[in-house]
Amino acid sequence: MTVRVGVIGGGQLARMMIAPAVELGLDLRVLAEADGMSARLAATAVGDYRDLETVRAFARDVDVVTFDHEHVPQRVLRALVADGVQVHPGPDALQYAQDKLVMRARLTELGVPQPDWAAVRDADQLQRFVDDHGGGAVVKTPRGGYDGKGVRVVHGGDEAADWFAALADGDALLAEELVPFTRELAQQVARRHSGEMVAYPVVETVQRDGVCAEVIAPAPGVGGRLAELAEGIGRTIAEGVGVTGMLAVELFETDDERILVNELAMRPHNSGHWSQDGAVTGQFEQHLRAVADLPLGGTEPREDWTVMINILGGPADGALEDRLAQAMTAHPSAKIHTYGKSPRPGRKVGHVNVAGADLDDVVYVARAAAARFL
Amino acid sequence: MTVRVGVIGGGQLARMMIAPAVELGLDLRVLAEADGMSARLAATAVGDYRDLETVRAFARDVDVVTFDHEHVPQRVLRALVADGVQVHPGPDALQYAQDKLVMRARLTELGVPQPDWAAVRDADQLQRFVDDHGGGAVVKTPRGGYDGKGVRVVHGGDEAADWFAALADGDALLAEELVPFTRELAQQVARRHSGEMVAYPVVETVQRDGVCAEVIAPAPGVGGRLAELAEGIGRTIAEGVGVTGMLAVELFETDDERILVNELAMRPHNSGHWSQDGAVTGQFEQHLRAVADLPLGGTEPREDWTVMINILGGPADGALEDRLAQAMTAHPSAKIHTYGKSPRPGRKVGHVNVAGADLDDVVYVARAAAARFL
Repeated sequence: MTVRVGVIGGGQLARMMIAPAVELGLDLRVLAEADGMSARLAATAVGDYRDLETVRAFARDVDVVTFDHEHVPQRVLRALVADGVQVHPGPDALQYAQDKLVMRARLTELGVPQPDWAAVRDADQLQRFVDDHGGGAVVKTPRGGYDGKGVRVVHGGDEAADWFAALADGDALLAEELVPFTRELAQQVARRHSGEMVAYPVVETVQRDGVCAEVIAPAPGVGGRLAELAEGIGRTIAEGVGVTGMLAVELFETDDERILVNELAMRPHNSGHWSQDGAVTGQFEQHLRAVADLPLGGTEPREDWTVMINILGGPADGALEDRLAQAMTAHPSAKIHTYGKSPRPGRKVGHVNVAGADLDDVVYVARAAAARFL
Repeated sequence: MTVRVGVIGGGQLARMMIAPAVELGLDLRVLAEADGMSARLAATAVGDYRDLETVRAFARDVDVVTFDHEHVPQRVLRALVADGVQVHPGPDALQYAQDKLVMRARLTELGVPQPDWAAVRDADQLQRFVDDHGGGAVVKTPRGGYDGKGVRVVHGGDEAADWFAALADGDALLAEELVPFTRELAQQVARRHSGEMVAYPVVETVQRDGVCAEVIAPAPGVGGRLAELAEGIGRTIAEGVGVTGMLAVELFETDDERILVNELAMRPHNSGHWSQDGAVTGQFEQHLRAVADLPLGGTEPREDWTVMINILGGPADGALEDRLAQAMTAHPSAKIHTYGKSPRPGRKVGHVNVAGADLDDVVYVARAAAARFL
């Protein structure tokens, strides 16, 4: 039987599931937000993922539902489950990727290292948190943030007044200590419903303006202890929240060799794009295997180093595709991935993967190839 | 501008172009022979590729036409070119893949080493060829053969009487000497319209019952001289016949270290499936780059060895996909490619690629993984 996998959301993550779905013989179907989205080739429906009847109609013709993003409301997810639909990851897991306060509370229960945090309901509570944490804090809206949106560094309780004013009754913001981190890492784990798990090597991520810009796999200079620690955290969380599919754990590394959990994502993640060309099993294939309840694939790196550089914005004049020729001529070893999106400042429109034995060379080629698209 | 690549034919070769087309941002459109073909996800038209108006209508909405097979008639190809359509490979090149007598004559002009051959019009001519070549010969119908069909080993002129009887006036069969070969090799080259070429490492192919069963890349025990010879032959032919896209040259290796050209194919070829997982640029991506006039990608192997095993026939009970789980459990390093076709004895329904440092291990895992589907 051909397994029909339905993906809610038609962005680049859904698009990048198309290639492994074809090779694995899965029938991929996408509920896209609009015509012409990144994953248009596999789009079988267009509609609002917040509308239960739209999602229900889409789910009727698939064997399992999964996601391009984490924004499908809990009420929709829970109705699907009540209908008997296979939803991976399920609503119980997804809530931890949808609400950062719920996530922080669960990680505390799981004993996973993370920044000090508190739920703050007003400026006074935030001021006390700032005072207790060296005069600064990170404030986050628990829901709806991504790529640096909904995140603010503050040094006084009044600096989030607008967000407090907009809070519904009973809601709170998340305050976190400002971690003096030396760099950011990411750990990915795939988990099946049965509990089977595999972990990817921990990678280094470089953010610019709150957006992932570069990834180096595996993270340079990470010895056995730190790699084990990161993998252990990933596995503990995957198991503890009951995720099915890919889990990405964004981490801070401190100068005293601690690693603290920053964010979670329950889907293929920008920090894992390197694996398409750099690991035995790419994260998009792995996600499909996990949600279609197929055995998980090997996660070993295929080369000493793989570097991923995001193409942010794209060319000011014309389409990304217009630059393919010059980029390929200059860099025949670069694997260029396009998202079928129009260029726009700051927008993720593609990425480049380069693998090889010499990290300096690999970084150079990957950056140079990506720069051809700007 | 997004380049629209139209593929005539909806088989597994067109199917395997989908993944790289998505990543490169090409708009792949397929003219399929029927509904439900392997490349159904990208099928935008269904119709007979021998019907000029069907092909013309399909070609109207694409920027370049290429192929899943070599069976589109010359009259259709030449009409497209007269219409101003970009056709790659073009009819002048494709004739050498469509007619083995035309191919042999051209290779003779090019001075490429090949078996002794002759055009034979009747049993007497064939008998003389047999007598002159040690009492045996291979007889081939010049057109329409594939996977061992249209090929016969004979020891007397009367053993092809049925084929002679079926010949149209003026037509001939191809007689070739029986080459005492030690093994079969294949050399792939990609060529752009501009003349830019890249060559893949020569591989060893193992045929069973006239069908490709296994490929080892690169060919074991091929020293520098033989590899250079094979690459030189590939480049000479690609240039000499003016192919655009992928060219596969099937070769016999003799015990005195000669290599002789057996067959040509002008499209991605079974002998190159290893490159999907084993080379920097897979042959399907390379073919798309060449026909869309994009610069060619690196052809270096990504591991010491890559082995491809065809899945021939598939399970007698149920679909290929039903066996995915057990194959993946047993062999997490195997890359399984399915063609979306129903099992049928002898039919190519998928293949497995495995890469690694130890050839014995790689062969073992690839064979074992493929055997899970039988």
